Amino acid sequence: MDPDGKLYLEDLPAGRRFESAERPIDADAITAFAAEFDPQPFHTDPSAAAGTFFQGLAASGWHTAAFTMRLLVESLPIAGGLIGAGGEIAWPRPTRPGDRLRVVSTVETNTPSRSRPDRGSIVLVSETLNQNDEVTQRLISRMIVPRRPAAGS
Amino acid sequence: MDPDGKLYLEDLPAGRRFESAERPIDADAITAFAAEFDPQPFHTDPSAAAGTFFQGLAASGWHTAAFTMRLLVESLPIAGGLIGAGGEIAWPRPTRPGDRLRVVSTVETNTPSRSRPDRGSIVLVSETLNQNDEVTQRLISRMIVPRRPAAGS
Repeated sequence: MDPDGKLYLEDLPAGRRFESAERPIDADAITAFAAEFDPQPFHTDPSAAAGTFFQGLAASGWHTAAFTMRLLVESLPIAGGLIGAGGEIAWPRPTRPGDRLRVVSTVETNTPSRSRPDRGSIVLVSETLNQNDEVTQRLISRMIVPRRPAAGS
Repeated sequence: MDPDGKLYLEDLPAGRRFESAERPIDADAITAFAAEFDPQPFHTDPSAAAGTFFQGLAASGWHTAAFTMRLLVESLPIAGGLIGAGGEIAWPRPTRPGDRLRVVSTVETNTPSRSRPDRGSIVLVSETLNQNDEVTQRLISRMIVPRRPAAGS
Protein backbone atom coordinates (compact mmCIF):
# COMPACT_ATOMS: atom_id res chain seq x y z
CA MET A 1 0.00 0.00 0.00
CA ASP A 2 1.29 3.41 -0.95
CA PRO A 3 1.37 6.37 1.44
CA ASP A 4 -1.68 7.67 -0.46
CA GLY A 5 -3.58 4.52 0.49
CA LYS A 6 -3.70 3.26 -3.08
CA LEU A 7 -2.91 -0.27 -4.17
CA TYR A 8 -0.35 -1.08 -6.87
CA LEU A 9 0.44 -4.35 -8.62
CA GLU A 10 3.06 -5.12 -5.96
CA ASP A 11 0.36 -4.95 -3.27
CA LEU A 12 -1.85 -7.57 -4.89
CA PRO A 13 -0.19 -10.98 -4.63
CA ALA A 14 -2.23 -14.08 -5.40
CA GLY A 15 -4.31 -14.97 -2.37
CA ARG A 16 -4.77 -11.46 -1.03
CA ARG A 17 -8.36 -10.98 0.09
CA PHE A 18 -10.59 -7.93 0.41
CA GLU A 19 -13.99 -7.67 2.00
CA SER A 20 -16.40 -4.80 1.43
CA ALA A 21 -18.89 -3.26 3.78
CA GLU A 22 -22.43 -4.63 3.66
CA ARG A 23 -25.17 -2.60 1.97
CA PRO A 24 -28.92 -3.22 1.79
CA ILE A 25 -30.92 -3.40 -1.42
CA ASP A 26 -34.66 -2.81 -1.28
CA ALA A 27 -37.67 -3.44 -3.51
CA ASP A 28 -37.88 0.18 -4.69
CA ALA A 29 -34.28 0.10 -5.89
CA ILE A 30 -34.84 -3.25 -7.61
CA THR A 31 -37.94 -2.13 -9.50
CA ALA A 32 -36.47 1.30 -10.39
CA PHE A 33 -33.35 -0.26 -11.89
CA ALA A 34 -35.40 -2.81 -13.79
CA ALA A 35 -37.83 -0.22 -15.13
CA GLU A 36 -34.89 1.53 -16.77
CA PHE A 37 -32.70 -1.39 -17.83
CA ASP A 38 -34.43 -4.75 -17.54
CA PRO A 39 -38.20 -4.26 -17.77
CA GLN A 40 -39.44 -7.79 -17.18
CA PRO A 41 -42.25 -8.63 -14.73
CA PHE A 42 -40.08 -10.69 -12.37
CA HIS A 43 -37.90 -7.60 -11.84
CA THR A 44 -40.54 -4.84 -11.92
CA ASP A 45 -43.77 -6.15 -10.41
CA PRO A 46 -43.89 -8.06 -7.10
CA SER A 47 -47.37 -9.49 -7.82
CA ALA A 48 -46.61 -10.65 -11.35
CA ALA A 49 -43.23 -12.00 -10.20
CA ALA A 50 -44.90 -14.55 -7.94
CA GLY A 51 -46.00 -16.65 -10.91
CA THR A 52 -42.65 -16.66 -12.75
CA PHE A 53 -39.46 -18.71 -12.85
CA PHE A 54 -38.17 -16.60 -9.93
CA GLN A 55 -41.25 -17.13 -7.72
CA GLY A 56 -41.13 -13.59 -6.42
CA LEU A 57 -39.42 -10.28 -7.07
CA ALA A 58 -35.76 -10.68 -7.98
CA ALA A 59 -33.17 -8.06 -8.87
CA SER A 60 -31.92 -7.99 -12.43
CA GLY A 61 -28.57 -9.75 -12.59
CA TRP A 62 -27.20 -6.52 -14.03
CA HIS A 63 -28.42 -4.69 -10.94
CA THR A 64 -26.54 -7.16 -8.76
CA ALA A 65 -23.52 -6.57 -11.00
CA ALA A 66 -23.73 -2.78 -10.74
CA PHE A 67 -24.34 -2.95 -6.98
CA THR A 68 -21.29 -5.20 -6.70
CA MET A 69 -19.20 -2.69 -8.61
CA ARG A 70 -20.10 -0.03 -6.04
CA LEU A 71 -18.92 -2.32 -3.25
CA LEU A 72 -15.72 -3.09 -5.16
CA VAL A 73 -14.94 0.59 -5.70
CA GLU A 74 -15.35 1.12 -1.96
CA SER A 75 -13.24 -1.86 -0.90
CA LEU A 76 -10.42 -2.09 -3.41
CA PRO A 77 -8.55 1.22 -3.78
CA ILE A 78 -6.41 0.36 -6.80
CA ALA A 79 -4.20 3.23 -7.98
CA GLY A 80 -5.65 4.71 -11.15
CA GLY A 81 -9.03 3.12 -10.47
CA LEU A 82 -10.73 -0.18 -11.13
CA ILE A 83 -10.44 -0.80 -14.84
CA GLY A 84 -11.87 -4.11 -15.96
CA ALA A 85 -11.21 -5.52 -19.40
CA GLY A 86 -13.92 -8.12 -18.99
CA GLY A 87 -14.57 -11.38 -17.27
CA GLU A 88 -16.97 -14.15 -16.45
CA ILE A 89 -20.13 -13.61 -14.48
CA ALA A 90 -22.65 -16.01 -12.97
CA TRP A 91 -25.70 -15.59 -10.77
CA PRO A 92 -26.16 -18.78 -8.76
CA ARG A 93 -29.21 -17.34 -7.00
CA PRO A 94 -31.16 -14.09 -7.31
CA THR A 95 -30.78 -11.01 -5.17
CA ARG A 96 -34.04 -10.40 -3.29
CA PRO A 97 -35.62 -7.28 -1.77
CA GLY A 98 -34.23 -6.73 1.71
CA ASP A 99 -30.99 -8.55 1.03
CA ARG A 100 -27.84 -7.09 2.50
CA LEU A 101 -24.96 -7.62 0.10
CA ARG A 102 -21.23 -7.57 0.56
CA VAL A 103 -18.37 -8.57 -1.71
CA VAL A 104 -15.42 -10.77 -0.88
CA SER A 105 -12.65 -10.56 -3.48
CA THR A 106 -9.54 -12.69 -3.78
CA VAL A 107 -6.59 -12.12 -6.10
CA GLU A 108 -6.16 -15.25 -8.21
CA THR A 109 -3.23 -14.31 -10.42
CA ASN A 110 -0.83 -11.37 -10.66
CA THR A 111 0.97 -10.89 -13.97
CA PRO A 112 3.36 -8.02 -14.76
CA SER A 113 3.09 -6.91 -18.38
CA ARG A 114 5.93 -8.08 -20.60
CA SER A 115 5.67 -5.14 -22.95
CA ARG A 116 4.65 -2.34 -20.56
CA PRO A 117 6.94 -2.04 -17.52
CA ASP A 118 4.55 0.42 -15.83
CA ARG A 119 1.65 -2.01 -15.45
CA GLY A 120 0.36 -5.52 -15.16
CA SER A 121 -2.89 -7.34 -14.67
CA ILE A 122 -4.62 -9.33 -11.99
CA VAL A 123 -7.40 -11.85 -12.12
CA LEU A 124 -9.79 -11.16 -9.28
CA VAL A 125 -12.53 -13.49 -8.07
CA SER A 126 -15.35 -11.52 -6.44
CA GLU A 127 -18.22 -13.24 -4.68
CA THR A 128 -21.27 -11.21 -3.81
CA LEU A 129 -22.84 -12.65 -0.68
CA ASN A 130 -26.16 -11.99 0.96
CA GLN A 131 -26.86 -11.84 4.70
CA ASN A 132 -27.07 -15.65 4.79
CA ASP A 133 -23.65 -16.01 3.17
CA GLU A 134 -25.27 -17.30 -0.01
CA VAL A 135 -23.53 -16.36 -3.25
CA THR A 136 -25.73 -14.20 -5.49
CA GLN A 137 -22.99 -13.43 -7.99
CA ARG A 138 -19.58 -14.77 -8.88
CA LEU A 139 -17.42 -12.51 -11.01
CA ILE A 140 -14.00 -13.41 -12.34
CA SER A 141 -12.48 -10.27 -13.79
CA ARG A 142 -9.19 -9.26 -15.32
CA MET A 143 -8.08 -5.82 -14.25
CA ILE A 144 -5.30 -3.58 -15.43
CA VAL A 145 -3.17 -2.38 -12.49
CA PRO A 146 -0.25 0.08 -12.46
CA ARG A 147 3.08 -0.85 -10.91
CA ARG A 148 4.38 1.34 -8.15
CA PRO A 149 6.49 4.16 -9.61
CA ALA A 150 10.15 4.02 -8.65
CA ALA A 151 10.99 6.22 -5.66
CA GLY A 152 11.70 9.80 -6.72
CA SER A 153 10.20 9.38 -10.18
CA MET B 1 -42.67 -17.73 -33.35
CA ASP B 2 -45.86 -18.38 -31.45
CA PRO B 3 -49.16 -16.67 -32.24
CA ASP B 4 -48.47 -14.55 -29.13
CA GLY B 5 -45.25 -13.32 -30.73
CA LYS B 6 -43.05 -15.08 -28.21
CA LEU B 7 -40.02 -17.17 -29.03
CA TYR B 8 -39.56 -20.75 -27.86
CA LEU B 9 -36.53 -23.01 -28.02
CA GLU B 10 -37.73 -24.33 -31.39
CA ASP B 11 -37.57 -20.78 -32.78
CA LEU B 12 -33.94 -20.27 -31.89
CA PRO B 13 -31.73 -22.47 -34.10
CA ALA B 14 -28.01 -21.85 -34.17
CA GLY B 15 -27.28 -18.99 -36.53
CA ARG B 16 -30.52 -17.07 -36.01
CA ARG B 17 -29.78 -13.38 -35.68
CA PHE B 18 -31.61 -10.54 -33.95
CA GLU B 19 -30.91 -6.83 -34.20
CA SER B 20 -32.24 -4.25 -31.76
CA ALA B 21 -33.25 -0.68 -32.36
CA GLU B 22 -30.59 1.96 -31.79
CA ARG B 23 -30.72 4.11 -28.66
CA PRO B 24 -28.60 7.11 -27.67
CA ILE B 25 -26.67 7.40 -24.41
CA ASP B 26 -25.70 10.84 -23.18
CA ALA B 27 -23.27 12.31 -20.66
CA ASP B 28 -25.95 12.92 -18.03
CA ALA B 29 -27.01 9.28 -18.10
CA ILE B 30 -23.38 8.14 -17.92
CA THR B 31 -22.52 10.30 -14.91
CA ALA B 32 -25.81 9.54 -13.10
CA PHE B 33 -25.31 5.78 -13.41
CA ALA B 34 -21.70 6.07 -12.30
CA ALA B 35 -22.54 8.26 -9.30
CA GLU B 36 -24.75 5.46 -8.03
CA PHE B 37 -22.82 2.36 -9.04
CA ASP B 38 -19.30 3.10 -10.24
CA PRO B 39 -18.11 6.38 -8.71
CA GLN B 40 -14.75 6.79 -10.38
CA PRO B 41 -13.58 10.07 -11.99
CA PHE B 42 -13.39 8.68 -15.54
CA HIS B 43 -17.11 7.84 -15.30
CA THR B 44 -18.40 10.79 -13.24
CA ASP B 45 -16.39 13.89 -14.14
CA PRO B 46 -15.67 14.93 -17.74
CA SER B 47 -12.80 17.24 -16.71
CA ALA B 48 -11.06 14.75 -14.45
CA ALA B 49 -11.63 11.99 -17.02
CA ALA B 50 -9.41 13.76 -19.55
CA GLY B 51 -6.28 12.85 -17.60
CA THR B 52 -7.09 9.18 -17.04
CA PHE B 53 -6.60 5.85 -18.79
CA PHE B 54 -9.82 6.56 -20.73
CA GLN B 55 -8.74 10.03 -21.93
CA GLY B 56 -12.23 11.40 -21.53
CA LEU B 57 -15.59 10.52 -20.06
CA ALA B 58 -16.48 6.85 -20.54
CA ALA B 59 -19.53 4.89 -19.41
CA SER B 60 -19.05 2.29 -16.72
CA GLY B 61 -18.85 -1.12 -18.35
CA TRP B 62 -21.78 -2.09 -16.12
CA HIS B 63 -23.77 0.78 -17.62
CA THR B 64 -23.04 -0.54 -21.10
CA ALA B 65 -24.12 -3.96 -19.83
CA ALA B 66 -27.39 -2.67 -18.34
CA PHE B 67 -28.11 -0.56 -21.43
CA THR B 68 -27.49 -3.66 -23.56
CA MET B 69 -29.97 -5.63 -21.47
CA ARG B 70 -32.65 -3.07 -22.24
CA LEU B 71 -31.97 -3.46 -25.95
CA LEU B 72 -32.05 -7.26 -25.61
CA VAL B 73 -35.39 -7.20 -23.79
CA GLU B 74 -36.79 -5.08 -26.64
CA SER B 75 -35.39 -7.23 -29.45
CA LEU B 76 -35.60 -10.82 -28.22
CA PRO B 77 -39.12 -11.73 -27.03
CA ILE B 78 -38.36 -15.10 -25.48
CA ALA B 79 -41.39 -16.78 -23.89
CA GLY B 80 -41.10 -16.52 -20.12
CA GLY B 81 -38.56 -13.71 -20.37
CA LEU B 82 -34.82 -13.38 -20.75
CA ILE B 83 -33.31 -15.40 -17.95
CA GLY B 84 -29.53 -15.51 -18.00
CA ALA B 85 -27.57 -17.92 -15.87
CA GLY B 86 -24.35 -16.11 -16.53
CA GLY B 87 -21.77 -15.64 -19.22
CA GLU B 88 -18.65 -13.94 -20.42
CA ILE B 89 -18.39 -10.21 -20.92
CA ALA B 90 -15.74 -8.01 -22.49
CA TRP B 91 -15.52 -4.33 -23.27
CA PRO B 92 -13.17 -3.90 -26.25
CA ARG B 93 -13.70 -0.12 -26.20
CA PRO B 94 -15.60 2.28 -23.95
CA THR B 95 -19.06 3.68 -24.54
CA ARG B 96 -18.79 7.47 -24.92
CA PRO B 97 -21.30 10.29 -24.39
CA GLY B 98 -23.39 10.74 -27.52
CA ASP B 99 -22.92 7.18 -28.71
CA ARG B 100 -25.92 5.47 -30.27
CA LEU B 101 -25.91 1.82 -29.31
CA ARG B 102 -27.62 -1.19 -30.79
CA VAL B 103 -27.25 -4.89 -30.12
CA VAL B 104 -26.81 -7.65 -32.66
CA SER B 105 -27.35 -11.12 -31.18
CA THR B 106 -26.69 -14.48 -32.77
CA VAL B 107 -27.70 -17.89 -31.43
CA GLU B 108 -24.54 -19.97 -31.13
CA THR B 109 -25.91 -23.23 -29.72
CA ASN B 110 -29.35 -24.64 -28.93
CA THR B 111 -29.53 -27.50 -26.46
CA PRO B 112 -32.74 -29.17 -25.26
CA SER B 113 -32.53 -30.21 -21.61
CA ARG B 114 -31.99 -33.92 -21.08
CA SER B 115 -33.77 -33.95 -17.73
CA ARG B 116 -36.47 -31.31 -18.24
CA PRO B 117 -38.56 -31.88 -21.39
CA ASP B 118 -40.19 -28.46 -21.05
CA ARG B 119 -37.04 -26.42 -21.56
CA GLY B 120 -33.55 -26.10 -22.95
CA SER B 121 -30.81 -23.55 -23.17
CA ILE B 122 -29.17 -21.42 -25.80
CA VAL B 123 -25.82 -19.73 -25.95
CA LEU B 124 -26.28 -16.26 -27.36
CA VAL B 125 -23.51 -13.97 -28.57
CA SER B 126 -24.55 -10.33 -28.28
CA GLU B 127 -22.41 -7.54 -29.66
CA THR B 128 -23.17 -3.99 -28.62
CA LEU B 129 -22.20 -1.67 -31.44
CA ASN B 130 -21.90 2.10 -31.57
CA GLN B 131 -22.86 4.35 -34.49
CA ASN B 132 -19.51 3.59 -36.13
CA ASP B 133 -20.11 -0.17 -35.94
CA GLU B 134 -17.40 -0.48 -33.30
CA VAL B 135 -17.97 -3.14 -30.65
CA THR B 136 -18.26 -1.64 -27.17
CA GLN B 137 -19.31 -4.89 -25.51
CA ARG B 138 -19.28 -8.56 -26.37
CA LEU B 139 -21.48 -10.77 -24.21
CA ILE B 140 -21.71 -14.53 -24.47
CA SER B 141 -24.61 -15.65 -22.33
CA ARG B 142 -26.38 -18.89 -21.59
CA MET B 143 -30.12 -18.50 -21.34
CA ILE B 144 -32.85 -20.81 -20.18
CA VAL B 145 -35.62 -21.07 -22.79
CA PRO B 146 -38.95 -22.95 -22.63
CA ARG B 147 -39.95 -25.39 -25.33
CA ARG B 148 -43.21 -24.75 -27.13
CA PRO B 149 -46.06 -26.46 -25.31
CA ALA B 150 -47.73 -29.25 -27.27
CA ALA B 151 -50.86 -28.10 -29.11
CA GLY B 152 -53.91 -28.24 -26.88
CA SER B 153 -51.93 -28.57 -23.66
